[in-house]
Amino acid sequence: MDRTLSHSPRIAVIGSGNVATHLAKAVTRAGYKLSIYNHRCESASRLASAVGATAVVDLDALDADIYIIAIKDDAIASLAASVAGRKGLWLHTSGSVDMKVFDGVVDSYGVLYPMQTFSKDADVDMTEVPFFIEGCNGDVTRAIRELASSLSHKVLEVSSANRVKLHIAAVFACNFTNYMWAQSADILESIGADFSVMHPLIKATLDKTLTMSPHDGQTGPARRGDVDIIKKHLSMLSGVKHKLYETLSTDIMNEYHHNLTDHQS
Amino acid sequence: MDRTLSHSPRIAVIGSGNVATHLAKAVTRAGYKLSIYNHRCESASRLASAVGATAVVDLDALDADIYIIAIKDDAIASLAASVAGRKGLWLHTSGSVDMKVFDGVVDSYGVLYPMQTFSKDADVDMTEVPFFIEGCNGDVTRAIRELASSLSHKVLEVSSANRVKLHIAAVFACNFTNYMWAQSADILESIGADFSVMHPLIKATLDKTLTMSPHDGQTGPARRGDVDIIKKHLSMLSGVKHKLYETLSTDIMNEYHHNLTDHQS
Repeated sequence: MDRTLSHSPRIAVIGSGNVATHLAKAVTRAGYKLSIYNHRCESASRLASAVGATAVVDLDALDADIYIIAIKDDAIASLAASVAGRKGLWLHTSGSVDMKVFDGVVDSYGVLYPMQTFSKDADVDMTEVPFFIEGCNGDVTRAIRELASSLSHKVLEVSSANRVKLHIAAVFACNFTNYMWAQSADILESIGADFSVMHPLIKATLDKTLTMSPHDGQTGPARRGDVDIIKKHLSMLSGVKHKLYETLSTDIMNEYHHNLTDHQS
Repeated sequence: MDRTLSHSPRIAVIGSGNVATHLAKAVTRAGYKLSIYNHRCESASRLASAVGATAVVDLDALDADIYIIAIKDDAIASLAASVAGRKGLWLHTSGSVDMKVFDGVVDSYGVLYPMQTFSKDADVDMTEVPFFIEGCNGDVTRAIRELASSLSHKVLEVSSANRVKLHIAAVFACNFTNYMWAQSADILESIGADFSVMHPLIKATLDKTLTMSPHDGQTGPARRGDVDIIKKHLSMLSGVKHKLYETLSTDIMNEYHHNLTDHQS
């Protein structure tokens, strides 16, 4: 897509971390004219030269139609305060910061939240990443939708309150899932096995959840209500693993076997 | 591989569920002569004709060199009792049943545990599935290893005690992981979003854990020690989800931030 025509908005990305890097790549790929600001000059230069953008070392000199703030959550409010009264459309990219952070600071603002786990080295197909957007009014929301749609096929409008719930859902689906894998890796290590023996099983588990709902795809001793196996497994566990196994098995049994009550912990 | 020569062992599979079905396919694919027994005649016939094997309707008439019992855990002991004194090598395929179930029943016995989540309709590349084996003596173990190696590239010897730990590790990696996805799907449903918006994130999470250890791949608010975000998220949750979020975040913080103590629940 060629957006180098004069009427295409000029984009500025503020930040140079994982989210900033992947957004900058996607923005230049979509043909926008891009400049990058970071308070650390070298970081801005490095990212700008990597994506063929212009590095800007002075925030006041940063001149664009749309500003995308991709910095740590707890730094957004003070950055917003430092650009009070500026023209242009101001967006942040956080899952949990309210859009109100821009209230009374600038006239035109909103949120552009790409829900993905980014690592600098791993390439991400941004066109497949869901973008959740929010604007301070209808015109702004349309402008954000136009930008987001040029980066991804999946653009959904969501309020600040619901965006926090999305973030919580992502914590369960990504961070807590990974923690379960870490527990599994510990147990395997205790018998001298590598986590790689578990790879075929976790790939099959993911394939299943992609084709049916997680509720329908639930399997295992607790799903079957197999109290004997659960007791045997608990007798071999201690500490965090014992507590998690008991808590999760009880919750799963309560959900799928409303008639079982004798297993409650 | 052509194992139709006369010296190749004749295999019998007992059962016709998910594990029996996938094992029967793998066994015939490897060229063994196969017969299938199930106490329900139609099930045995259906599976036998699907894989080009012989259905046998009378357990006493089942004649093979190696018998693979692929039935429910709690039915293995009584089936073993019913074949007491029979010749041949007897194997079960369970993750949690001790090999001792065959003690004093037959002379030659062991375990052939394919660690995978099987569904009848989904095709499984059995050559990638780890097979965990155990034999009642060295000769038997070698015979089981030969059979398993003709079905899969990944054959590991493991004791009954460690096999239960493998099973527990699989419960964490597969069943509990799926339960986290189910919680995520619930939260998304509460804001009118479909679980499919989470698919790119969970695929990226899995890709990451396949290339680095789950411990190194841990991310999220608890990993960062971001107590403000955790409190905000907890304020929006109730019931099982509140308890799980608090328990898991506390465990993750305790693991990665030994100096934090004020967040303990």
